[in-house]
Amino acid sequence: MSGPIVVINPNSNQVVTDGLEQALAAFHKAVEIDCVTLAEGPFGIESQYDVDQVALPLAALVKSRPDASAFVIACYSDPGLDLCRATASVPVFGIQESGVLTALARGDRFGVLAIAEASIPRHLRYLRRMGVIERLAGERALNMSVDESARGEGTFERLSEVGQELVADGADVLILGCAGMARHRAVLETRLGRPVIDPTQAAVAMAIGVVLSG
Amino acid sequence: MSGPIVVINPNSNQVVTDGLEQALAAFHKAVEIDCVTLAEGPFGIESQYDVDQVALPLAALVKSRPDASAFVIACYSDPGLDLCRATASVPVFGIQESGVLTALARGDRFGVLAIAEASIPRHLRYLRRMGVIERLAGERALNMSVDESARGEGTFERLSEVGQELVADGADVLILGCAGMARHRAVLETRLGRPVIDPTQAAVAMAIGVVLSG
Amino acid sequence: MSGPIVVINPNSNQVVTDGLEQALAAFHKAVEIDCVTLAEGPFGIESQYDVDQVALPLAALVKSRPDASAFVIACYSDPGLDLCRATASVPVFGIQESGVLTALARGDRFGVLAIAEASIPRHLRYLRRMGVIERLAGERALNMSVDESARGEGTFERLSEVGQELVADGADVLILGCAGMARHRAVLETRLGRPVIDPTQAAVAMAIGVVLSG
Amino acid sequence: MSGPIVVINPNSNQVVTDGLEQALAAFHKAVEIDCVTLAEGPFGIESQYDVDQVALPLAALVKSRPDASAFVIACYSDPGLDLCRATASVPVFGIQESGVLTALARGDRFGVLAIAEASIPRHLRYLRRMGVIERLAGERALNMSVDESARGEGTFERLSEVGQELVADGADVLILGCAGMARHRAVLETRLGRPVIDPTQAAVAMAIGVVLSG
Amino acid sequence: MSGPIVVINPNSNQVVTDGLEQALAAFHKAVEIDCVTLAEGPFGIESQYDVDQVALPLAALVKSRPDASAFVIACYSDPGLDLCRATASVPVFGIQESGVLTALARGDRFGVLAIAEASIPRHLRYLRRMGVIERLAGERALNMSVDESARGEGTFERLSEVGQELVADGADVLILGCAGMARHRAVLETRLGRPVIDPTQAAVAMAIGVVLSG
Amino acid sequence: MSGPIVVINPNSNQVVTDGLEQALAAFHKAVEIDCVTLAEGPFGIESQYDVDQVALPLAALVKSRPDASAFVIACYSDPGLDLCRATASVPVFGIQESGVLTALARGDRFGVLAIAEASIPRHLRYLRRMGVIERLAGERALNMSVDESARGEGTFERLSEVGQELVADGADVLILGCAGMARHRAVLETRLGRPVIDPTQAAVAMAIGVVLSG
Repeated sequence: MSGPIVVINPNSNQVVTDGLEQALAAFHKAVEIDCVTLAEGPFGIESQYDVDQVALPLAALVKSRPDASAFVIACYSDPGLDLCRATASVPVFGIQESGVLTALARGDRFGVLAIAEASIPRHLRYLRRMGVIERLAGERALNMSVDESARGEGTFERLSEVGQELVADGADVLILGCAGMARHRAVLETRLGRPVIDPTQAAVAMAIGVVLSG
Repeated sequence: MSGPIVVINPNSNQVVTDGLEQALAAFHKAVEIDCVTLAEGPFGIESQYDVDQVALPLAALVKSRPDASAFVIACYSDPGLDLCRATASVPVFGIQESGVLTALARGDRFGVLAIAEASIPRHLRYLRRMGVIERLAGERALNMSVDESARGEGTFERLSEVGQELVADGADVLILGCAGMARHRAVLETRLGRPVIDPTQAAVAMAIGVVLSG
Repeated sequence: MSGPIVVINPNSNQVVTDGLEQALAAFHKAVEIDCVTLAEGPFGIESQYDVDQVALPLAALVKSRPDASAFVIACYSDPGLDLCRATASVPVFGIQESGVLTALARGDRFGVLAIAEASIPRHLRYLRRMGVIERLAGERALNMSVDESARGEGTFERLSEVGQELVADGADVLILGCAGMARHRAVLETRLGRPVIDPTQAAVAMAIGVVLSG
Repeated sequence: MSGPIVVINPNSNQVVTDGLEQALAAFHKAVEIDCVTLAEGPFGIESQYDVDQVALPLAALVKSRPDASAFVIACYSDPGLDLCRATASVPVFGIQESGVLTALARGDRFGVLAIAEASIPRHLRYLRRMGVIERLAGERALNMSVDESARGEGTFERLSEVGQELVADGADVLILGCAGMARHRAVLETRLGRPVIDPTQAAVAMAIGVVLSG
Repeated sequence: MSGPIVVINPNSNQVVTDGLEQALAAFHKAVEIDCVTLAEGPFGIESQYDVDQVALPLAALVKSRPDASAFVIACYSDPGLDLCRATASVPVFGIQESGVLTALARGDRFGVLAIAEASIPRHLRYLRRMGVIERLAGERALNMSVDESARGEGTFERLSEVGQELVADGADVLILGCAGMARHRAVLETRLGRPVIDPTQAAVAMAIGVVLSG
Repeated sequence: MSGPIVVINPNSNQVVTDGLEQALAAFHKAVEIDCVTLAEGPFGIESQYDVDQVALPLAALVKSRPDASAFVIACYSDPGLDLCRATASVPVFGIQESGVLTALARGDRFGVLAIAEASIPRHLRYLRRMGVIERLAGERALNMSVDESARGEGTFERLSEVGQELVADGADVLILGCAGMARHRAVLETRLGRPVIDPTQAAVAMAIGVVLSG
């Protein structure tokens, strides 16, 4: 498999795609990575409607890239994941799934830093579907919009505050519950003294594993 | 983190370490990888005694490599994993854990191709400990020694046969339950029409994720 | 709540909608029931693409019926259920969910008669998401198309045969894993000596509970 | 099946039976419903002794009603349920079981408003037996007697207070953990902004499903 | 606590009580043990009715023995256990519960040798209630009456045959699912090469633990 | 089986072994018990290193006692348990495992009084491995050293305080999470009004069950 790993930002916010590029800069030396924006995506994926509306466009994009060696859907709701898997002939990774699985190798009980309260029940259903909810210490929301969290000054302080609450809940590893917060990963890890997983980096690492396994 | 990923073969069988080198050849372009043999290891890790006797030597080896950016313990029993984690200041990955977690991103229910019948109860306890046993379709043994499986002519036919039984059990992704069978991965995947995970490659991919996440 | 319960057939096969009408004939005396066909639906919902493509049209239909006192999505894949719930201000029932929950009140371990092999992993993920997979005795496929199963002569014999296999798996209650097989329910129940649940009837009964609870 | 659904109040408190009649008034148009009091029952079912002493009388009552098309045991402890099922040739529904199953179709994690602290461990054992405890957000007690809760002025305020605590625990649907509180259902639902399930109404709806399924 | 451990045979078959005396002969040197027959019990506890009818008489018997330091209910259905616990001021052990818990310390996955097919769903519900069903390898019935199994010549051969099936299911420890088969324990253990637990002995050992803990 | 039950203190602190002797004084009348100290053990088993370093010496000790009828490893981390079981031809009991299993027969949800915060994640992994974590109400640490807890004046007050927190977490039975606190068992039980399990006494009772079962 010699084509690029295609990382798809399913929302149309270019700030988020740019953030993905930066978050994955070091991964380029391992394998070619192509970060693309889903033109049809909403500005941010926040509601169930946002999640469901991108499924078909994502599958169309996947179909249009027969050169890809793997795909990563870079939105924490893992929109369209089942459909993209049914469509592609190469592996497709969702960042919630990959982020959680990677966290399970870095700590005993994980905590999730969600952007918005409203997405938590959706994530809990997904963790039950994955069969791993027994290892959840807690999920707590920053209560910011995706755009705010990607741009905002106060994001790190909020991450740190909510991260400490999750540590108090028993989390010994934390997951950034959004595609757009990678630049806070390392410094939050230092602040909290616990591994912090950026889910896109986790998914791309898994994709690299597939590509390099030959 | 700029040091190598140190991949440790906890048995003293050089054929297995050489196999690791080959299995990881393509991964070198992503990051420096150093495959080492645990001098104190037994020729193969098959019994509970074998598992327990390597814990302290593994931790000593880990301590002796402050240059490492991550460690991989390349034996499917994940010997000494808790202790190496308590010892190292960098992440340590076990290949059973990483192989299973990676399989969960590639299929719905996984099957494990174990070397020996006797190790299956040990693996099942470990899957319960991981909290993921709900997604196990089955584990079946080749009933070969580690050495035979690493060298033997008949290994592929046996893998194919037992793999088909696991597919019949409901597995839609398979894991090679041993560090020494990577060269059969791609061809077995083709034969069975299902993803086949080499657990060492899976663990190294996760380690790369850590190293490149910055 | 005085409006009708709106039962939506998300595929465009009128035979299936007619079957729903018949299956629900006796329920009309309890409350007004309106069976409608989703014009935008495919002829049968068999693939993941079929499932995902009807989510938005279903939500639009839900939005267009502010008179409804409850909705039932009459396809065993429960397509668009999360979105319809986020859209409607009245309760929305999926027939897989309702069928399974009702089966849990009629027996200890349930068996599911699926139409096609390919949908079984999708159903298993859903049962895990529901948190009730511990009570599944088994799911087995008739291996017919939705259209064949709705029309075909041989459907009952196949239901009976696969039903007996599920009883041997330990099932003491069975679920018809499709919206279009209600006319076989009573006679299959007699043949197998076990309760057989038609999932649309189960969902409509739950909807009636909401409407009559005042 | 043309006979009535027989709803049995296993305690001898006529206020509770009268409340059942009122709670089910609207259900009569769907099917004939006969609310009866178990003459041998204690004044309220609060202790384990109360639960166990009514099992045989309940089964005798069930046996004496061959005209019934289904039975509902209207006490949240589901006393004598296994025995009544072994005795009757028609379906028997317990209100705890039906209330919980119905809640699972109305929200993601449910909360239970118990009457007394002492019954909570009994209910938790029952939820484990049902295999659905993963979806429990919490159970909290009003700490009133069954009689007080059925008559008392302060009941609604207490329900509202404890309901808010359950919402804070993560419950997005609530269950009235007693047969005698249906008159508070609708107003509590409005106050809390979350679906509130009266378990007797839930059980009767399931029974209606059986009767009308033909 | 200086009184006897009172072991109650809840059926009125003296052969079973005599068997209990013999099974516990060696335990007398540890502590005084008093094996009693429940006069009101049926000849064998086989149906749900049998189980439920002994609850109140068992509690009465428990109440009549304030001298007891602990109680054991010696029937594998654990009849009246919750009520006896609510009644007694000393610990009460059920033999199914104690047998299963003890098996969990002797092997990884347990198999149960039930007397009759019909009791298996009741036992499975109980294992779910205990929260330990994940470790069940299987339960299979001898299909004999309690009386036959206690007397019969063919019992051992049947135990051996069904035990081998359970070993093939993955059981590495077996439980005799009845109070009256202790005399086969040791020889069956030898035949099957796996630990075999007599549940009454297991319960009495736990009771001894309480009595001697001071 | 006529030899002694050999109870091994895997640390070299004689105060702890003496405490075991006292805790088991009453058990001697049931069967011969031999409490021994592992010469190679550390002064207290607190870290993962401590746990892993005693596995091989424990197995050697087990091998050197062919006269034993059963073994008990008297440290709450159950060090070397898998290896001792693989080594011995008689049953081997770990005190965490036995203590937890015994607690499951004494209450519905158990609480654990750990010595140190750092051991809690290790214990939680172990409870998941056992498949019983669903019944854990909570585990909380005294935050004392093993030596302090064995000697210290303030130990009882601390046990009482943390025990009350666990009761508030929902625990109705408590386990002393250490081999050296048996002398506080009875008085703590009285103070808290809940059964308190000394895990060594629990393990020895299970071992007595094996020895006396003949």
